[in-house]
Amino acid sequence: MHILITGAAGMIGRKLTDRLIIDRALGDHIIEKLTLVDIVQPARPAGFSDHVKTRAGDLAGPGVAEKAISERPDVIFHLAGVVSGEAETDFDKGYRVNLDGTRALLEAIRLAGGGYKPKVIFTSSIAVYGAPFPYAIPDDFHLTPLTSYGTQKAISELLLADYTRRGFLEGVGIRLPTICVRPGKPNKAASGFFSGIIREPLAGMEAILPVADTVRHTHASPRSAVGFLIHAAGLSREQLGPRINLAMPGVCCTVAEQIESLTRIAGPKVAARIRREPDELIVRIVSGWSERFDAKRAAELGFTAEANFDEIIKAHIDDELGGKIA
Amino acid sequence: MHILITGAAGMIGRKLTDRLIIDRALGDHIIEKLTLVDIVQPARPAGFSDHVKTRAGDLAGPGVAEKAISERPDVIFHLAGVVSGEAETDFDKGYRVNLDGTRALLEAIRLAGGGYKPKVIFTSSIAVYGAPFPYAIPDDFHLTPLTSYGTQKAISELLLADYTRRGFLEGVGIRLPTICVRPGKPNKAASGFFSGIIREPLAGMEAILPVADTVRHTHASPRSAVGFLIHAAGLSREQLGPRINLAMPGVCCTVAEQIESLTRIAGPKVAARIRREPDELIVRIVSGWSERFDAKRAAELGFTAEANFDEIIKAHIDDELGGKIA
Repeated sequence: MHILITGAAGMIGRKLTDRLIIDRALGDHIIEKLTLVDIVQPARPAGFSDHVKTRAGDLAGPGVAEKAISERPDVIFHLAGVVSGEAETDFDKGYRVNLDGTRALLEAIRLAGGGYKPKVIFTSSIAVYGAPFPYAIPDDFHLTPLTSYGTQKAISELLLADYTRRGFLEGVGIRLPTICVRPGKPNKAASGFFSGIIREPLAGMEAILPVADTVRHTHASPRSAVGFLIHAAGLSREQLGPRINLAMPGVCCTVAEQIESLTRIAGPKVAARIRREPDELIVRIVSGWSERFDAKRAAELGFTAEANFDEIIKAHIDDELGGKIA
Repeated sequence: MHILITGAAGMIGRKLTDRLIIDRALGDHIIEKLTLVDIVQPARPAGFSDHVKTRAGDLAGPGVAEKAISERPDVIFHLAGVVSGEAETDFDKGYRVNLDGTRALLEAIRLAGGGYKPKVIFTSSIAVYGAPFPYAIPDDFHLTPLTSYGTQKAISELLLADYTRRGFLEGVGIRLPTICVRPGKPNKAASGFFSGIIREPLAGMEAILPVADTVRHTHASPRSAVGFLIHAAGLSREQLGPRINLAMPGVCCTVAEQIESLTRIAGPKVAARIRREPDELIVRIVSGWSERFDAKRAAELGFTAEANFDEIIKAHIDDELGGKIA
């Protein structure tokens, strides 16, 4: 089996690559070849070098998508995209990468000919939803995104569903909840604190909490995100039916509950490294975000996330800190 | 006030043009100029010739959208598009006209500069919805179109909402129900019989009914469709809020109730011109269509359609048959 990952140099892309190389298989199929594409040249993963191709390229650029699929990958994980903040500050770039890039990929597949019909697993986002929300967002809730990023994801979902319906490919769109704990350095994303208040204290550093303890949100670990992608690739058209875009499960909890988990796992000294410093802008942005999902279809289709926030913290300690707390 | 109509040569476009020329005003504003654009040169309407420009052009073509808005229309009725059947049989054409054409228009507006910020009223369709449906489709029901046409309309709605949110224009998307009674000759659209079983008998001709009498659907007259467009142009940003795409009201009834109305208004001899001839393909297509809407927001915002199917037939007799039945 030949697998293509777009956006392979990103956080989820790298973790997915690592997981596929460990598994050496996707479902019942041995992985024989990996193609890794990103706007920057993805790193060559160790231990698989004979069968890996890495390419740098913007999928929206002329011929790039055609080249990416020229060796007819059986499964495509389409993760490429610019993030929410960048899509909002750079309107042209957001539409070019997140919409035109996706469309170019889908068009390249459609026009490839020869009965080519890959599976395409697309990472969408809960940003396709926009406030006001019901108590829990059901699977049949409308998409009224309040960001250009969310708009581009929603449009890509619609394209993916239509290309699937027409028989050009077999698509699955998975709406990722907020990924927590994101590894790496703090960033300026408005959602950054959800990870920061866990990651920084565990690394012996101070973290700033800009919102109230009562803020409620839904999270899944990077490990779960990779699990969603792999599980999605194993679903059949019959299981999916015509509604191929799915909200993923996650752990719904308040910031206070996140901090309680941290205290339970790492002790009060670690949790005391969180400093409360309200930020009106972040408070306002976060107030428009979804809190809770009733992701029934994903559950029925066997997608699973962590059962509670303790497990999310433990996944971070295992996967990023070698099992140790600073 | 300068008004641009795209798709001006179509049925709704011509009726909207006629109505604007009769009214000579839109809301409180005198209409000083009309620009009519379509893929074929729209007819010059009588009685307004000094202030009308007509243009033939494909909005997706280079420079066409820029030229269409070059004189900065204050209000744009964007009706241009290929119909459902054509978008399904000609994939490329559907996406080019219905998606790229709309995007080209929105981009031309965004890039026009000089603080240009027109109102854009876009005719979407209930084809943005896809079965299975609840008893009545609520305003917050998700968009899972089952045609390329519905996909293109849903994507255009999302773009319109994002361009509105970003302040490039003031958009309203109106999801038209099935327009009934469509004037003119019978066509091969799967929905054609809803109009045909009224129009043909009233004109002294036989009509074929390919589905069961129990089929339920929601209709609005061409006159109501024009009314929706004009009403939408009068709504303020404050009234609309961020959710600018709205399902329109209509008359929900069964085919049997349509025929009862026809009998009431035109007599049993006219209604007897309907011949039942089941068509499995049409039965199957229609079974995937929405039946009933709970278009609360449109009602709250003052959109009105006919109260019952008798009124829809009477509108047809008045507007198309000079008040007379054959």
